[in-house]
Amino acid sequence: MSDSPAPTPPVDQWVADAAAQPAVVTTVAELREAVAAIRRTDASIGLVPTMGALHRGHLSLVERSRQRCDATVVTIFVNPTQFAPGEDLERYPRPLERDLQLLAEAGVDLVFVPSTEEIYPEGCTTTVNPPQVARLLEGESRPPHFAGVATVVLKLFNMIDADVAFFGQKDYQQTLVVRHMVADLNVPIEIEICPIVRDEDGLALSSRNHYLSAAEREAALSLNRTLRKAEQAIREGENDGRALAASMTQSLIEGGVTELEYAVVADAGTLQSLETIRLPAVLLVAARVGSTRLIDNILVR
Amino acid sequence: MSDSPAPTPPVDQWVADAAAQPAVVTTVAELREAVAAIRRTDASIGLVPTMGALHRGHLSLVERSRQRCDATVVTIFVNPTQFAPGEDLERYPRPLERDLQLLAEAGVDLVFVPSTEEIYPEGCTTTVNPPQVARLLEGESRPPHFAGVATVVLKLFNMIDADVAFFGQKDYQQTLVVRHMVADLNVPIEIEICPIVRDEDGLALSSRNHYLSAAEREAALSLNRTLRKAEQAIREGENDGRALAASMTQSLIEGGVTELEYAVVADAGTLQSLETIRLPAVLLVAARVGSTRLIDNILVR
Repeated sequence: MSDSPAPTPPVDQWVADAAAQPAVVTTVAELREAVAAIRRTDASIGLVPTMGALHRGHLSLVERSRQRCDATVVTIFVNPTQFAPGEDLERYPRPLERDLQLLAEAGVDLVFVPSTEEIYPEGCTTTVNPPQVARLLEGESRPPHFAGVATVVLKLFNMIDADVAFFGQKDYQQTLVVRHMVADLNVPIEIEICPIVRDEDGLALSSRNHYLSAAEREAALSLNRTLRKAEQAIREGENDGRALAASMTQSLIEGGVTELEYAVVADAGTLQSLETIRLPAVLLVAARVGSTRLIDNILVR
Repeated sequence: MSDSPAPTPPVDQWVADAAAQPAVVTTVAELREAVAAIRRTDASIGLVPTMGALHRGHLSLVERSRQRCDATVVTIFVNPTQFAPGEDLERYPRPLERDLQLLAEAGVDLVFVPSTEEIYPEGCTTTVNPPQVARLLEGESRPPHFAGVATVVLKLFNMIDADVAFFGQKDYQQTLVVRHMVADLNVPIEIEICPIVRDEDGLALSSRNHYLSAAEREAALSLNRTLRKAEQAIREGENDGRALAASMTQSLIEGGVTELEYAVVADAGTLQSLETIRLPAVLLVAARVGSTRLIDNILVR
C-alpha cells in the first residue's frame, strides 16, 4: 500500500467543488497558504487534530466541525514527542490512503500530513510546560506525554488560524490539558469536546483497538462495563470515592485486564481523587490488555 | 502621583483622530475588542511590548513600528515571573502617567496596561520552556528569567493579533529567545530587532539607569567602553576569543564595576563562547554597578 496522497486540486478552489477530494498539504508553508485562501472567503474554520488511523470517533469530530464551521481542516501526525520510550510509536497504525479516503467522504476541505522533520526541524527546542492538571494519572504513567501533546497542539493552533478545535472526550485528561493551556496562554481558539463514540459492545473506539485479539477484546470490554457499574452506583447514592475506586479496581481485575494503571473517581475539573463524591465527577480507567494500553471514562454530572 | 490613566476615547474611534490620546485598556477582553476594531479596518498592526519606565530606546521601537505598520500597540507590564527572588521587582520604576504621555506624543494607537491578576489569574500554570539558547549567560545568572519572558511574550502575542513585534537589541539574548520561540512554536508573527539607543556618553539606555548615582554612572560607562575596545581589537585582527574575553574582564574591573557577571565573545546565533573568533560574533557583558544590574552588547558582523 502506497503512502502517497492522491493528486489534489489547487487550494484556492476549495470552495468551488464540495464533492472534490480535500486538498492535501505536507508543509507548513503550503498549509498557511491554504488556510489563508479559506480565510479570504470569510469562512469560519474548524480544526480536528488527529494521529490518523481514523475511526468513527474521529469522523464524529469532523461531522461536528462541519455542522459548526464553514470549512474543516484535519491534521494527521503521529507525534513522536507524546510517546514515552518503549511505547508503540513504531508500530502505531498509519493507513494514510484509507484515512484520506474517509476524510474525502466526510467532506473535509483540507488535510495536513506533515513529516516529523516538518514539525520538529533541527534545533527546535522550545516546548510547552503543560498545566498542573497534566501531572496526575496519564502524567504519572507516561511522564513526557502531555508536554508532547501540549507542544504539538499549540504548534498546530499557531499554524492553522481556526475558530474552533474539536477533541474527543475519550482522552478526558487531554481535553483538560488543552483547555487549560488555551486559557493560560490566551490562545485565541475555542475548544469543543465531543462525546465518546463506542462500538455496539460498548468498547470506546481507539486506533489501538486494532491491536486486540478476540480474547483480549473480551477483557477490554470490562473497562466500559466497570465504568457503567460505577456510574450506576453513584446514581444510586454511593458517595464514598475510595470504596467505589476499590470496587472498580476489583471489577477490572476480575474482567481480565493484564495490568491496571489506574481506576479513579475524580473531580471533573481538577482530576483530584474524591474521598466524598461530588458531581460533576469523572470516572477514569487505564489498563493494559495484553500489551495494548486502553483508556476510558464516564463523566457523571 | 496617580497611576490612573486619563479618560480615553472609545476604541472604535482609534483611526478617526490621529492627534487623540491612545486608547488605554486594562483587561484582555477590552484589548481583544480594540485590536479587532483595528483589524476590521484592514490596518497592519505593530506591537511593542515593554515594562514601562519608557526611555528613548522604547520610543525608537514605537517609531519603527509607526514606519512599518498602520497601527501601533504598546503593552506596559512589569512581569513578575521574569524577576528572580531578591531582584528589583518591587522597586522597579512605574511612572505610568509619564509613560502614557510619552506614548500619546509618539502617536501610539492603543496601550495595554494590565494588572498582574489579569495576566496570571489564579490557577494559571502553563508556561513556556524556552529554547536552548536561554540556558547560557542570563539563564545561568537568573535561572527563571527567560521562562518568564517567553511565557509572557507568547501570551501577549496570542492576545494581540499583530503583524510585527519590535524588540531592542539591548537585550540581545532575549531577542534570540523570542526569535527561536516564535520559530519553534510556529507563532504567526514577524520579529524585528532594533538598534541599541545610547546616551551621549555611550551608556545604553535602560530603565534601571535611574538607579545609578553620578559616581556609579561613571563606572557604568566602562561597559560600553570595554565593548568598543573589544570590537576595535577584532577589527584589527584579534581572533583569540579567550584572550579578548580576559581583556574585557580586566577592563571592566579596572573601570570600577562592583561585580562582573559575564564578559564573553560568542557566536551571534548560538551564544556559544568562541575560542577562535568568527563573525558574526557578539560581545556581551553583564555587571553590577553598586546594586544595579546592567547589560550591554555589540554585534560584530
